Amino acid sequence: MRRATLATIAAAAGVSLPTVSKVLNGKDDVGAETRARVRQLLAEYDYVPVGSRRASGHLLVDLVFTALDSPWAVEIIRGVVDTGLHVVVSSTDKPRQHTSWAASLVEARRAGALLVTSQLTAADRRVLANSRIPVVVIDPVDLPQPNVPSVGATNWAGGLAATEHLLRLGHRRVGVIGGPAGMLCSRARVDGYRAALDRAGIAFNPELVKHGDFKHEGGFRRAAELLALPDRPTAIFAGNDEQALGVIEAARVVGLSVPHDLSVVGFDDLPVAVWSSPALTTVRQPLTEMGRHAGRMLADLIAGRPVETERVELATELVVRSSTKEPPC
Amino acid sequence: MRRATLATIAAAAGVSLPTVSKVLNGKDDVGAETRARVRQLLAEYDYVPVGSRRASGHLLVDLVFTALDSPWAVEIIRGVVDTGLHVVVSSTDKPRQHTSWAASLVEARRAGALLVTSQLTAADRRVLANSRIPVVVIDPVDLPQPNVPSVGATNWAGGLAATEHLLRLGHRRVGVIGGPAGMLCSRARVDGYRAALDRAGIAFNPELVKHGDFKHEGGFRRAAELLALPDRPTAIFAGNDEQALGVIEAARVVGLSVPHDLSVVGFDDLPVAVWSSPALTTVRQPLTEMGRHAGRMLADLIAGRPVETERVELATELVVRSSTKEPPC
Repeated sequence: MRRATLATIAAAAGVSLPTVSKVLNGKDDVGAETRARVRQLLAEYDYVPVGSRRASGHLLVDLVFTALDSPWAVEIIRGVVDTGLHVVVSSTDKPRQHTSWAASLVEARRAGALLVTSQLTAADRRVLANSRIPVVVIDPVDLPQPNVPSVGATNWAGGLAATEHLLRLGHRRVGVIGGPAGMLCSRARVDGYRAALDRAGIAFNPELVKHGDFKHEGGFRRAAELLALPDRPTAIFAGNDEQALGVIEAARVVGLSVPHDLSVVGFDDLPVAVWSSPALTTVRQPLTEMGRHAGRMLADLIAGRPVETERVELATELVVRSSTKEPPC
Repeated sequence: MRRATLATIAAAAGVSLPTVSKVLNGKDDVGAETRARVRQLLAEYDYVPVGSRRASGHLLVDLVFTALDSPWAVEIIRGVVDTGLHVVVSSTDKPRQHTSWAASLVEARRAGALLVTSQLTAADRRVLANSRIPVVVIDPVDLPQPNVPSVGATNWAGGLAATEHLLRLGHRRVGVIGGPAGMLCSRARVDGYRAALDRAGIAFNPELVKHGDFKHEGGFRRAAELLALPDRPTAIFAGNDEQALGVIEAARVVGLSVPHDLSVVGFDDLPVAVWSSPALTTVRQPLTEMGRHAGRMLADLIAGRPVETERVELATELVVRSSTKEPPC
């Protein structure tokens, strides 16, 4: 395998070795066009003097989302950036150059990869496994593969805390809107809701359980159904913040006031939870900490240090704001 | 300047050259510990076979934010990722290894950098200029430096469109909440507001002009002041979406309904604009297109192609939703 030296680059650019050195060192006496050509080649060959590389000592890793379409993403990016890793952000819905995203990830030969994505095809899994690139999965929606380290949040405990908060306020008819039925994190949140009802001795009523899409639209539609029931719920645990905002809008449209006529609890604690009107009571999912933790696990794997455990769940926490209160008399 | 060859890496790892090759090619017959050590060294030396690098042909660039604290960021990231550049995301509020962010950017020797940041110190500017790394600035808040290409949005035209929309609905007392007074994009939006009033023959009233911080808190506080006026405005152009959500909350707190008692217009059209209750009428700032355009300009600069113009402003567009209507009789 050949390796680019300064001589290779000088030859490719059709200039002398000292000229390449001048460009590298930012000297003035090189024409603009020549400088551009040499710089382009240095970039293409990824030329980095060993000394400076070791001085900086930063590892370059990929952070892969299914789609860059949610405020959610920036919370995780911030956490991974915090670790000092240099983070290349991409999404699987933008195939690069006709290859699968997994293949292009391997092709780019990063030190490792963090996947915030659940839709791994069998082909993707095979490509990743064969590449032996260290991988950590953040908040997997389906069951993580054995031997793929992953970081999630305590979704079940969060669903329990959200529902117990509403029961403590005196609510007895509490609706829930989960995400897509197949998503494990959604399943865990709804199971937490059921556990809270059980502990309070309240019978589970399937009529009060709906499944949305974790989007505003789903929250809006499912809440409209719940609010149209003859004996409508006085509180709704909305599954995530985006759905909770849809629930608040559905209430507004039928002339119900939150929290006076309807209490609403979200899940995530995105910045929008504070911006909601009224400010949203929600279950904080520590997205930034999850990014940070996953980044550290990946750095350990790259360095060949064993990870303590394959699966970590960081604690969720109830944050009480203004969208919940006692039920109307 | 030395360059890492496979022999260098074999020597550093204390293994044979064929062993390094086996690790590179994902062969099975290497011990886990040795494989980890070799992989770590390959990563540290950034070893990439020239063939595979050229085949992928992707340029690695930095995308630098002042802080990763807004849903705003993910919109821009998506646009840059769309261009096919490989994007390393970072923020200037996380100094890397005690050096300034500009110095660490230079140290990492990327092909180029996109800056979504305005607080360039004189030292940062000098480091960047000396490095000769191609740079494009996205939505600069202060005046871009001469010779630094930049991409923004038509803030003045957006402020004009927002205000004319309210005037067409019949509003005559229209308040405005800008961002920090020193920010040029804020100044342009407020100037657009003034121009709309002038065109409609409505006297400018300084009492109706406030300055916030482009955050929810600022929108909430300044709106509370406007709504406490003896002759309060019937509509508020809120400067950006986050402030608009603060205005909606300030109205709710004093028992005013949006849009029946108060019309509200935002600026940006973040995803939260749709999730707001009621959904927010706003001025779309094409953040994703701005990221895409800046990415293409940067790729041109790296390739030594001249950029057509140093400063590009992409068009803003009024998006009418449910937070605006005729003033109450």
